[in-house]
Amino acid sequence: MAKIDVSRRQLFKGVGALALGLTLGKILPPKAQAQKINASRWPWPYVKLDPKTTAELAYESWYHLYCGAAVINSVFSQLRKKVGQPYLSFPIKGFMFAEGGVAGWGTICGSLLGANIVTNLIIGPRLTGNPTGTLMGSEIMQWYTEAKMPLYVPKNPKVSPDKIPHTVSNSPLCHISVGKWMKKAHKALHSPERRDRCARVTASVAYHLVELLNLWKEGKYETEGEFPSGEFGITAQYNCEDCHGENVPEPPGEED
Amino acid sequence: MAKIDVSRRQLFKGVGALALGLTLGKILPPKAQAQKINASRWPWPYVKLDPKTTAELAYESWYHLYCGAAVINSVFSQLRKKVGQPYLSFPIKGFMFAEGGVAGWGTICGSLLGANIVTNLIIGPRLTGNPTGTLMGSEIMQWYTEAKMPLYVPKNPKVSPDKIPHTVSNSPLCHISVGKWMKKAHKALHSPERRDRCARVTASVAYHLVELLNLWKEGKYETEGEFPSGEFGITAQYNCEDCHGENVPEPPGEED
Repeated sequence: MAKIDVSRRQLFKGVGALALGLTLGKILPPKAQAQKINASRWPWPYVKLDPKTTAELAYESWYHLYCGAAVINSVFSQLRKKVGQPYLSFPIKGFMFAEGGVAGWGTICGSLLGANIVTNLIIGPRLTGNPTGTLMGSEIMQWYTEAKMPLYVPKNPKVSPDKIPHTVSNSPLCHISVGKWMKKAHKALHSPERRDRCARVTASVAYHLVELLNLWKEGKYETEGEFPSGEFGITAQYNCEDCHGENVPEPPGEED
Repeated sequence: MAKIDVSRRQLFKGVGALALGLTLGKILPPKAQAQKINASRWPWPYVKLDPKTTAELAYESWYHLYCGAAVINSVFSQLRKKVGQPYLSFPIKGFMFAEGGVAGWGTICGSLLGANIVTNLIIGPRLTGNPTGTLMGSEIMQWYTEAKMPLYVPKNPKVSPDKIPHTVSNSPLCHISVGKWMKKAHKALHSPERRDRCARVTASVAYHLVELLNLWKEGKYETEGEFPSGEFGITAQYNCEDCHGENVPEPPGEED
C-alpha cells in the first residue's frame, strides 16, 4: 500500500506537469511551442515570399507603423506564420521610431533602416564570417538612391497615382529623399500626397528586398553592395557634391 | 488490476512529461524557463544600471561589435543577467551593421541608432500611447550634436587620451561627426586614434543613455526630446546652414 501511495503521489505530480504543459501550450503561440528560440544563430530560417504580397503589406502597414517598422513587418509577419521562431519573438513594432529618418530627424530613410535590419537578421551579421546580409542592405541603399521613387503602385491606392510625382533622391537620407519630392510635388510634409508617397516608397523597398532575399534563398544572389567607407576613406554617401559643391575635402590618409 | 495498469501507464506518461521538462530546462537559458516571452508588450522590465560599468562595456564591445551593437550590448547584456527575458531573445549582434553610419554609408551615427533602439524597446514605441521612448532617443541625438565628443575616458584606454582631440559634430550623422573629428585630428579613418575616438563616443552615449533610463525608472525623467519634423515642416536636423548655406529652402506649407 505504501508503494502504491508513493506511486499515486508521483502520478499526481506527473499529471500536474502535463497540465502545466497544456497551460503553457495555450500561452505560447503554436509555432513557438516546438521550437527552441535562438535568435543569435544565423542564418534565420527563410522561405521565399511573394514580392507583391510583401509590398501590399508594407503599404498598408505604413499607415500605422510608418516606414521602418512597416518594412520589417511586411517580411517578418509572413515569416511568423510560415516559419515561427525567431520571428515570433522579434519586437517589430518597437522599430516604429525609424519614422521620418529616426524620430523625425531626417537621417537614414526608415524604409532603408528596416531593410538593413531584415537582411542582417535573416542572413546574419558579418561577424559570422559572411558579409552578405550587410552587403545586401548596402546594395538596397544604392538601388534606392538611383530609383525614380516611388516605384510601386498599390492595388488600392489611398491617393490617385497622378498626384504622386517621381523623384531620384541620390541619397539614402530621409531629409533629402523627402525634400526633393516635396519640392517637385509642392506638397507639405503632412499632406496626404507626401504620406502616400512614403507609403509607396516603403512598399517599393519591401518588394525589392524580397526579390533579393528570394535570390539568396535560391543560391543565386551575387551582391552588388559595397562598404562606401572603403572607397572614400570616410563613411560616406556617393553624393559628395550635393553638400560640398566642388570643394570635396580629401580625407587624411594612412600616411598622414 | 486493470485500473492499476491504466494508472501505471498514466504514471509513465507523467514521468515522461517530467523528463521532457527537465530536458527543456537544460536547453533553455535559466531566466527563460520561468518567463513567458512577450517582446511586444511594453515597457520591458528594467533595473537601474551603473553608467560607468555600462560605458566600459560599450567601450570594450566596440572593438568587436562596433558602435550600434556595442551600445545595445552594453545595456542588454547586463539586463540579460539581471532580468532575463525579453533581452535573452533579442539578437544583439545582428545590429553590427549599424557601424559607420549603417554599413559605412555615414548616415545616422551607429551609437545613436543603438541608443534609439534601446530607449524604444525598453520604454516602448509611441503607438502604445507613450512617446517617452522615442523622445528620449531624440533627446540623446540633440545632446550628442552639442557634446564635445568623446566625453568618456575609459579606465584602460587603448590609445593615449592626449591623442584624441574633442569636436562638436552639430549633427547626428556619422559622416559629419567623424569627418569633423578626422579634420581636427588629421587622422585617417582606419587609424587607431579614429577607432578609439569612436569607441569612446560609443561609451559616452551608453553612459548618458543609462543616466536617462535610470531617471525614467525612478519616475523623475522629464524629456527634452522633440520631433524636429514638427518644427521644420520637414524631417530634419538643426544644422540647416551646414549644407544649405544661407539659402535654406522654405518647405511647402499646408496651404500650398
